[in-house]
Amino acid sequence: MKVLRNGRHSDMLAVWREGGTVYFIDQRKLPGALEIFEARNYRDIAFAIAHMVVRGAPAIGCAAAYGMALAMTQHDNVEEASRAIKATRPTAHDLFYAVNWMTEMAPRLGPVEAAAKYASDIIDKCRLIGQNGGKLISDGDIILTHCNAGALATVDYGTALAPIRIAHSEGKKIFVYVDETRPWLQGSRLTAWELTNESIPHAIIADNAAGHFIRKDVDCVIVGADRIAANGDFANKIGTYEKAVVARANDVPFYVAAPVSTFDFTITSGDDIRIEERSEEEITTMGGMRIAGPGEQARNPVFDVTPHELVSGFITEYGVFGPDGIKSLHGRL
Amino acid sequence: MKVLRNGRHSDMLAVWREGGTVYFIDQRKLPGALEIFEARNYRDIAFAIAHMVVRGAPAIGCAAAYGMALAMTQHDNVEEASRAIKATRPTAHDLFYAVNWMTEMAPRLGPVEAAAKYASDIIDKCRLIGQNGGKLISDGDIILTHCNAGALATVDYGTALAPIRIAHSEGKKIFVYVDETRPWLQGSRLTAWELTNESIPHAIIADNAAGHFIRKDVDCVIVGADRIAANGDFANKIGTYEKAVVARANDVPFYVAAPVSTFDFTITSGDDIRIEERSEEEITTMGGMRIAGPGEQARNPVFDVTPHELVSGFITEYGVFGPDGIKSLHGRL
Repeated sequence: MKVLRNGRHSDMLAVWREGGTVYFIDQRKLPGALEIFEARNYRDIAFAIAHMVVRGAPAIGCAAAYGMALAMTQHDNVEEASRAIKATRPTAHDLFYAVNWMTEMAPRLGPVEAAAKYASDIIDKCRLIGQNGGKLISDGDIILTHCNAGALATVDYGTALAPIRIAHSEGKKIFVYVDETRPWLQGSRLTAWELTNESIPHAIIADNAAGHFIRKDVDCVIVGADRIAANGDFANKIGTYEKAVVARANDVPFYVAAPVSTFDFTITSGDDIRIEERSEEEITTMGGMRIAGPGEQARNPVFDVTPHELVSGFITEYGVFGPDGIKSLHGRL
Repeated sequence: MKVLRNGRHSDMLAVWREGGTVYFIDQRKLPGALEIFEARNYRDIAFAIAHMVVRGAPAIGCAAAYGMALAMTQHDNVEEASRAIKATRPTAHDLFYAVNWMTEMAPRLGPVEAAAKYASDIIDKCRLIGQNGGKLISDGDIILTHCNAGALATVDYGTALAPIRIAHSEGKKIFVYVDETRPWLQGSRLTAWELTNESIPHAIIADNAAGHFIRKDVDCVIVGADRIAANGDFANKIGTYEKAVVARANDVPFYVAAPVSTFDFTITSGDDIRIEERSEEEITTMGGMRIAGPGEQARNPVFDVTPHELVSGFITEYGVFGPDGIKSLHGRL
């Protein structure tokens, strides 16, 4: 992805490896500061996932692959590393997919090479998602996206943002409404930062305003996913379900962009997806500042489940599929 | 309303008059501090409305009535005062209703007496809204509300919160999900504060989580309104439309609580309601702290319009009416 620093553009990845160290753009610090987090062992990787130094299902998968490689090359107990990494966050399927993938592939390719392949595959898949999804975007379209399913969430290109990047690079004049995405503000902090770096016109809106704009002038909604069940029900950032319901009520196409690693064909429907609930402080405080009265209680589910009926299409590296068509992705890598 | 200070409950109004001064609980400062704003002339009143010292359609109406009384007793140019007060905010119908009401009633009753009657009428109407709406709430119900349509928004009792207060006072065991209501956080700052003062069980949620909980366990949604057109389309805090669409999709009753002063029978539908757009800084900063990157742009419509088809009932001081029944309120005071 393009990153603008001191008036100059450079190319960066959200996660990369050099020597024995894995580096992350620290997503807790953006957009105020561009800081790099260094992970030297699998425990650092587990910390980075649990504490959201890195987030977004495909990027979490990539971090997990690098974490497994570190455990393997440093002769840690690989079973223990696998358990520790899987225990960081419950919802993103890519996390579990990546750990299992490494267990299978590292003995064949070597741990470092396997993790490198996992990362470069994700980048390739996201570029394909961009090309497949870009065809759904017309010149002049206004697009709404929720949370950050950008390069930061996927190493490069993004899932939901990949079609937007490709459409923009093809010269289509597009405009993006960026839901700010409370409580963690992935939209106003991360998605807006990515779009600014790419010079893609956009405006941040309160999550509450998404319905107003979907009704008024949005041409399509594109979001990412954290886990997609065999029937097409999917978990994504809290609020996704509301946007999908409102899009359907206004006949606005609603697309889900995700690589096959996000599909969990072992579960039949969204009822089987475990929804993470994070700390109340994400709701009652902001940047350390208290924004609710003392003693106030909050509920903080950070994902919700959207039923497959509300999805116009799944944009994958293999093409765009309706909920009925995703069966054909089962078993593909 | 009950207010808990230094461990003791006292009774307070959101707006009141003593001598030649109008006092407001300063809603910009809650819940961190309970400060009183003093308005000594109509210009102070206009400032208080424009800068959201006071907000909420019925409370804005009451402030406007007091402002007109100040202008009249201080021998200001009443036409000018009327224009200045009406120019503060465009959406709440009560503002215009109250200024016109004062123009008609002050010559008959005297300005101070007319404003006092306007305020005490609002309190009575909200109590009736509570009694009429309280019947819709059953023991054990889980209720979701958006923004603050409480005593702070209406001098006392509230509109949406009045049925909740009455149900609680009757011993019904209820639980309230409080949408935090970005960007101004009327939910986490004001509604949660009111419910805590009344010891009504509740939890603050991100606006994004409303859909998740409506789908899971909410029994009814109750909101206020800023302006209701003759056909029942209504403007309320941004985000209301989304909650209404999701409630309908889940067969959850969706109620709008408002006094007749909020109904604007001069407009036929929601298309005629002017939607206020406030400053971008309400989105890009919080409490003075920047939460988006430098130069980021935002859109900040602070109300949206919900079509009447999505309303299960309008809870008024005269009873509960479906969209087809509100015609009968035309001309009532």
